[in-house]
Amino acid sequence: MSQASVYAELPYVRYEGPDTRNPLAYRWYDPERVVLGKTLAEHLRPAVCYWHTFCWGGQDPFALGDNLFQRPWFSGDPMVAARLKLEAAFDFFERLGLPFWCFHDRDVGPEGTTLAESNRQLDTLLERAGERMQASGIRLLWGTANLFSHPRYMSGAATNPDPEVFAHAAAQVKHALEWTQRLDGANYVLWGGREGYETLLNTNLRRELDQYGRFLAAVVEHKHKIGFTGTLLIEPKPQEPTKHQYDYDSATVYGFLKRYGLENEVKVNLEVNHATLAGHSFEHEVATAAALGILGSIDANRGDEQLGWDTDQFPNNHVQLVPAMLEIIRHGGLGTGGMNFDAKVRRQSIDPVDQLAGHVGGLDTLARAFLCAAALHESGELDRPLAERYAGWNSPLGHDILAGASLDELARRVHEQGLSPRPRSGAQEQLENVVNRWV
Amino acid sequence: MSQASVYAELPYVRYEGPDTRNPLAYRWYDPERVVLGKTLAEHLRPAVCYWHTFCWGGQDPFALGDNLFQRPWFSGDPMVAARLKLEAAFDFFERLGLPFWCFHDRDVGPEGTTLAESNRQLDTLLERAGERMQASGIRLLWGTANLFSHPRYMSGAATNPDPEVFAHAAAQVKHALEWTQRLDGANYVLWGGREGYETLLNTNLRRELDQYGRFLAAVVEHKHKIGFTGTLLIEPKPQEPTKHQYDYDSATVYGFLKRYGLENEVKVNLEVNHATLAGHSFEHEVATAAALGILGSIDANRGDEQLGWDTDQFPNNHVQLVPAMLEIIRHGGLGTGGMNFDAKVRRQSIDPVDQLAGHVGGLDTLARAFLCAAALHESGELDRPLAERYAGWNSPLGHDILAGASLDELARRVHEQGLSPRPRSGAQEQLENVVNRWV
Amino acid sequence: MSQASVYAELPYVRYEGPDTRNPLAYRWYDPERVVLGKTLAEHLRPAVCYWHTFCWGGQDPFALGDNLFQRPWFSGDPMVAARLKLEAAFDFFERLGLPFWCFHDRDVGPEGTTLAESNRQLDTLLERAGERMQASGIRLLWGTANLFSHPRYMSGAATNPDPEVFAHAAAQVKHALEWTQRLDGANYVLWGGREGYETLLNTNLRRELDQYGRFLAAVVEHKHKIGFTGTLLIEPKPQEPTKHQYDYDSATVYGFLKRYGLENEVKVNLEVNHATLAGHSFEHEVATAAALGILGSIDANRGDEQLGWDTDQFPNNHVQLVPAMLEIIRHGGLGTGGMNFDAKVRRQSIDPVDQLAGHVGGLDTLARAFLCAAALHESGELDRPLAERYAGWNSPLGHDILAGASLDELARRVHEQGLSPRPRSGAQEQLENVVNRWV
Amino acid sequence: MSQASVYAELPYVRYEGPDTRNPLAYRWYDPERVVLGKTLAEHLRPAVCYWHTFCWGGQDPFALGDNLFQRPWFSGDPMVAARLKLEAAFDFFERLGLPFWCFHDRDVGPEGTTLAESNRQLDTLLERAGERMQASGIRLLWGTANLFSHPRYMSGAATNPDPEVFAHAAAQVKHALEWTQRLDGANYVLWGGREGYETLLNTNLRRELDQYGRFLAAVVEHKHKIGFTGTLLIEPKPQEPTKHQYDYDSATVYGFLKRYGLENEVKVNLEVNHATLAGHSFEHEVATAAALGILGSIDANRGDEQLGWDTDQFPNNHVQLVPAMLEIIRHGGLGTGGMNFDAKVRRQSIDPVDQLAGHVGGLDTLARAFLCAAALHESGELDRPLAERYAGWNSPLGHDILAGASLDELARRVHEQGLSPRPRSGAQEQLENVVNRWV
Repeated sequence: MSQASVYAELPYVRYEGPDTRNPLAYRWYDPERVVLGKTLAEHLRPAVCYWHTFCWGGQDPFALGDNLFQRPWFSGDPMVAARLKLEAAFDFFERLGLPFWCFHDRDVGPEGTTLAESNRQLDTLLERAGERMQASGIRLLWGTANLFSHPRYMSGAATNPDPEVFAHAAAQVKHALEWTQRLDGANYVLWGGREGYETLLNTNLRRELDQYGRFLAAVVEHKHKIGFTGTLLIEPKPQEPTKHQYDYDSATVYGFLKRYGLENEVKVNLEVNHATLAGHSFEHEVATAAALGILGSIDANRGDEQLGWDTDQFPNNHVQLVPAMLEIIRHGGLGTGGMNFDAKVRRQSIDPVDQLAGHVGGLDTLARAFLCAAALHESGELDRPLAERYAGWNSPLGHDILAGASLDELARRVHEQGLSPRPRSGAQEQLENVVNRWV
Repeated sequence: MSQASVYAELPYVRYEGPDTRNPLAYRWYDPERVVLGKTLAEHLRPAVCYWHTFCWGGQDPFALGDNLFQRPWFSGDPMVAARLKLEAAFDFFERLGLPFWCFHDRDVGPEGTTLAESNRQLDTLLERAGERMQASGIRLLWGTANLFSHPRYMSGAATNPDPEVFAHAAAQVKHALEWTQRLDGANYVLWGGREGYETLLNTNLRRELDQYGRFLAAVVEHKHKIGFTGTLLIEPKPQEPTKHQYDYDSATVYGFLKRYGLENEVKVNLEVNHATLAGHSFEHEVATAAALGILGSIDANRGDEQLGWDTDQFPNNHVQLVPAMLEIIRHGGLGTGGMNFDAKVRRQSIDPVDQLAGHVGGLDTLARAFLCAAALHESGELDRPLAERYAGWNSPLGHDILAGASLDELARRVHEQGLSPRPRSGAQEQLENVVNRWV
Repeated sequence: MSQASVYAELPYVRYEGPDTRNPLAYRWYDPERVVLGKTLAEHLRPAVCYWHTFCWGGQDPFALGDNLFQRPWFSGDPMVAARLKLEAAFDFFERLGLPFWCFHDRDVGPEGTTLAESNRQLDTLLERAGERMQASGIRLLWGTANLFSHPRYMSGAATNPDPEVFAHAAAQVKHALEWTQRLDGANYVLWGGREGYETLLNTNLRRELDQYGRFLAAVVEHKHKIGFTGTLLIEPKPQEPTKHQYDYDSATVYGFLKRYGLENEVKVNLEVNHATLAGHSFEHEVATAAALGILGSIDANRGDEQLGWDTDQFPNNHVQLVPAMLEIIRHGGLGTGGMNFDAKVRRQSIDPVDQLAGHVGGLDTLARAFLCAAALHESGELDRPLAERYAGWNSPLGHDILAGASLDELARRVHEQGLSPRPRSGAQEQLENVVNRWV
Repeated sequence: MSQASVYAELPYVRYEGPDTRNPLAYRWYDPERVVLGKTLAEHLRPAVCYWHTFCWGGQDPFALGDNLFQRPWFSGDPMVAARLKLEAAFDFFERLGLPFWCFHDRDVGPEGTTLAESNRQLDTLLERAGERMQASGIRLLWGTANLFSHPRYMSGAATNPDPEVFAHAAAQVKHALEWTQRLDGANYVLWGGREGYETLLNTNLRRELDQYGRFLAAVVEHKHKIGFTGTLLIEPKPQEPTKHQYDYDSATVYGFLKRYGLENEVKVNLEVNHATLAGHSFEHEVATAAALGILGSIDANRGDEQLGWDTDQFPNNHVQLVPAMLEIIRHGGLGTGGMNFDAKVRRQSIDPVDQLAGHVGGLDTLARAFLCAAALHESGELDRPLAERYAGWNSPLGHDILAGASLDELARRVHEQGLSPRPRSGAQEQLENVVNRWV
């Protein structure tokens, strides 16, 4: 059985416009459409990831539900399987016509009996990936190292109580980062899925934070040493797999970066579902990261509002994404970042066409949300009331306050000038209606 | 009707030990009991707050349920009522026999038609409070300014779009801080209940953060100017009353303080229920603040695990509090901080004795939890396995890593030494059983 | 100051179509538009309620935030104020042009010193309401009695430990139900906001359920006695104001009705936010009530996904409502029911125009969602795959199973026929893409 | 490698009392201790389950974390492995000294290529289990069939769109139920982990409920046909693995049973964590099931308050369990039911001793909670205020109401007698303090 059998019968997906009846055409994602001075593809920089699409077999996370997806690479010799998977993945990428892909090292190359063997296996496969990239024009949005699946990482990678695990993780990141550079990756991602704790009873929190800070600094140093010009990104997530993860959310990561002097070196890769698991709206995470100067890239996987775990579903409600898209546009875009989505179908969606449909729907949702946000932004209908709302801060009082007026000075003015400010409506409902005119 | 009628018939609460049948005696809170070198009163530094106990009339937060509590100060001339309330409050404090109280300015003195009048009213009442403190020996744990109830603050105090509101808030804090100093308060608290947003559509997040940073800096400057030696404390809360508050949790406050260079000037006052609303265990918030160097004081109000709002209930499960108490002990205690509890009874608990019973139960829970944690700490049964778990970091490899070993260097060691670390059990169940031996 | 001043300057809202730039016009709610054989107004049967719009003054539920909304009926003589409020409310209704209104008895008429006085006051005001209804053509969707605000109800109405409270509630419902009949109301609602508990320690759960069952039966009996032909509706809510309410969700109410033999007499009025507080999607609650035969009416207030309390916001994301609208259409509509929304603006929205804007946006969202769902339904694109999915149940095996085949018989067939069923894709992503073609 | 190697070196656990320093002794679970007329073992009827302890290898539910637990039965020939596992499990049971075990069919016997082969394999293994039961005196609390792991069940068992799956499930339950009878099991459990939906878009809710009702009726009929005298139990769970499960909570199951006329045939097996995932306290679920007459048995696994999925941890806070134990005592105990706990250690707890420690701690927590609740119950200190609270219902008015007084009659009494009930304190804080005297 050749790998071609899995995705070969699927069509190449094209833009056909909102009225098409073709369920496997883009209705909104027209990569060449120019808006706000750039093409949609340049704005979104969408990327497909190996992770759930090619490596997850439909096992149930909870009830030991068996593997459901019949794919030729889920059995047999690991390197043969890995090659099958790689070719299939690029077949899939080509059908979607997206500009980027991204990878975890162990999703591409199987773990060997030593790190050296693991590295050699990865080398072989990424050589081939490079050829397929060359042939197809598909670029690398980011690479990353899987520091969470292997038993050695069960108690953390950088934050492990055993320094040998730290060393192993460092060596693994070195290899993944260098390959990311070699494949001209735009970013390198660190997701600290095991950098956290299950119980404080066996955890030295302060020590682990210091270990993690040192690890991140070493990655920054290596980036500069090898001359990698992409952006380093941390992907925050509050919990899952551990009870608590140190990269809880944007604000927490910002404090961590400040603590270790890395706030100008590292940005964040924000996932929709990670935001909601942390108790935030997605637009909150985007706006916070933007305000703090660490907005890097987007992982567009959403969750299910009734479930307390990461479902990694495709975005499928464009209205919900418009506020975040607006924050990105106001921020001036994502720079080297882009929008990846792990593309996890539901467990009962066992056919290859389900995976393609999921990507098509997800990308269309992103595109539609961006187009709505762009039109809303161009209208200026939100910016005007916002500027008016804060106009008082352009007054002498406003300037004096921000220039450092003391409590004494401000109290004097209140008493002398009889300041008695009146509330003015926040007009939230009217602003929400404005948004709804553009969706 | 004199104020005496409300609490005068309630008994003075004494320590009578675990076997007492007296429902209004302390069973665990023996203020003089010495443990870990200090008395229980010195460790806990418990404080009763005006807020819910004397100012809330049992209105339902949601269904416009009417005032239920018959207290003489809920009607009539505001200053007459405020005096009644003050005397009643100190009668109540004296019955509980706690070393501290704490206050919001507007809970003590009613709002006047101008700030000057509000200040004069507060002066009159706090003069009297000083006399009652003198007479009873009850000290002030902290003071604070209510920057959230009056309509002028509906869109924030420091983060208001109107700089006049900022000025008003500054003047109000100046007065409250100076009174806190005059009453020899151990700390001054800032709770940013309106420093947040309802919708990003009408919010300039970055500007508001800068306003808030400037406000806090002005408070720090004023503290030094007047020579107040207490600690400044921010009380984090993730949301409620607003959709999102900037002081979300310990880690967020830390990042904020670092951003504005205030991390050595301000600590946090951590509330149990605010921790849980933010998605954290209380011990997590305590451990995080301790690790980041900003652990200040404790607000022991807990929530209800099935409800999504702040119920401000008394602590009543000592087992649940032991881990946080242990973190406090390991940290070396709370310094100038203490443990306040707002003492909000349930709405149906309309009798004065219900309020006293709530405080007795709450304090006993705190005392019992502390005693358990102290015994556990003294046993060393958690510290030994913790030290063993991280022992590898005392090796040359551990030292080299923290001293700055590069990815190249670490990769070299992994390959040359064939490092292949083995997982070791985290033993969580055994550690949990150890804890259960001491509760 | 006359009541005219509050809403008189607001425009009458008209349908102007999706492209209008008029912020106070309907863009989607064209009441005369015919779809699926009826007008939009006949499908939606929208109703405005007194509750939040005219009775809530912007008090903060949590932080004792003061009344913010300047309305002439929030002070002065209660009956004078109530008349002002009534006239203003009908002015507001007329501007919106909706076919229905609805009321809680105590929102219209103030509580008197006796029930008789309360009733007389209500009589006076509802007489006038009847005149305004006559003049404007606005009809009554439902009436209800407020059995939760007055202190007597603090521990429940029907489920109160004091039977005198039960009697009082019974008398109050009698009056409200009879007025609902007199005003030709289409339904009568019971919301059990105090029928629940704060703690099981002071609660006899079984006894309270029996009390509640008897209360509901008495209401049913009275309905038949007086010949009221409208539908009785329970509005489920899981908690808030109490810790736990007995009418938790649709499925719980169904079990309760079955227990007391009332499942053919009472249906449910489903609120979006009550569904989400109970851990369900709104479409789940609608589909469940429909499947169980108790779908009655809709309260379209939504919540905030990051907040754990009832925010009663306007619906403003039509995509989110399409699945529920589809369930309603498949069910054949709401019968005597309709769609009310309590119309609670955000606290900072202090101007009358904010209230109007909120209603306009809310109604447009409902209308747009309905139109999308109707088009999707007419396309048949979801019904076909659904029929195919269950087609096997039309086989002899399917019929035999539902006709009562035994385990022995089914085991025999599995063994003899070697039944080994194969999984088939659930195609969720493809179906979600279908929905997105119609929004 | 023999199976003996895994648990053979672990000690037999004995009761040694609260002061023992032996970490693997019971401190509270003294099986022979008599309280409320029965031994602790007779009250608790504790049972260990195969499920997580012997079948889960430490895989991470989310991040594809690898198998961590080195157990000889996780590889090799399935039947050889299954025998190793069975012997090890009984070795483990014997060390714990508990009176009961329980099983899922597929945990004991591996799936064969046909149902007949699966059955034969199960027969062989359960024959051996019977011998070990005989030898050790360990009895069977319940058996159950795994209708959720195999791919055929991915879209449900009884609620599958394919009736062949229903038939297969029926045949499987027949075999498991008959074995449960043969091993003298006290109960038979049905957990509907796949009886639910992922999306309403591909679901016919009403049809699936009818299928499920028919399935349950067939099981009831078969029970009577074969003369099984144990209790049939449904284990409610709101979601996980599916988005929504039909057996959401006690109240939902009750309504379902009433709908299909099975409320006298089936009871519930309540899990602590399933209660909390459904938004309820555990004591709420117990009290509700008791009030509705369907309280059957207990699954004592708890969750983590900060995590939104089922962690199946050991109970370790006895204070938290006291209210539920009190409800069980008031109900008169669990009848044929008992208390099983799945015994899932944390993923980092890779040593066999961790599993034993978890069970010891869990059982001690259950025993301590029961002893506290029994003493509290015997004191009568909660029952007296409860009786007083509802005493009014013994009045003529109370009797008349429950006997069917009409709204007219009650309104007449309110007006004629001038009924004006006064609120009385619910005294929640005082009652909570009472509880705390007994923990």
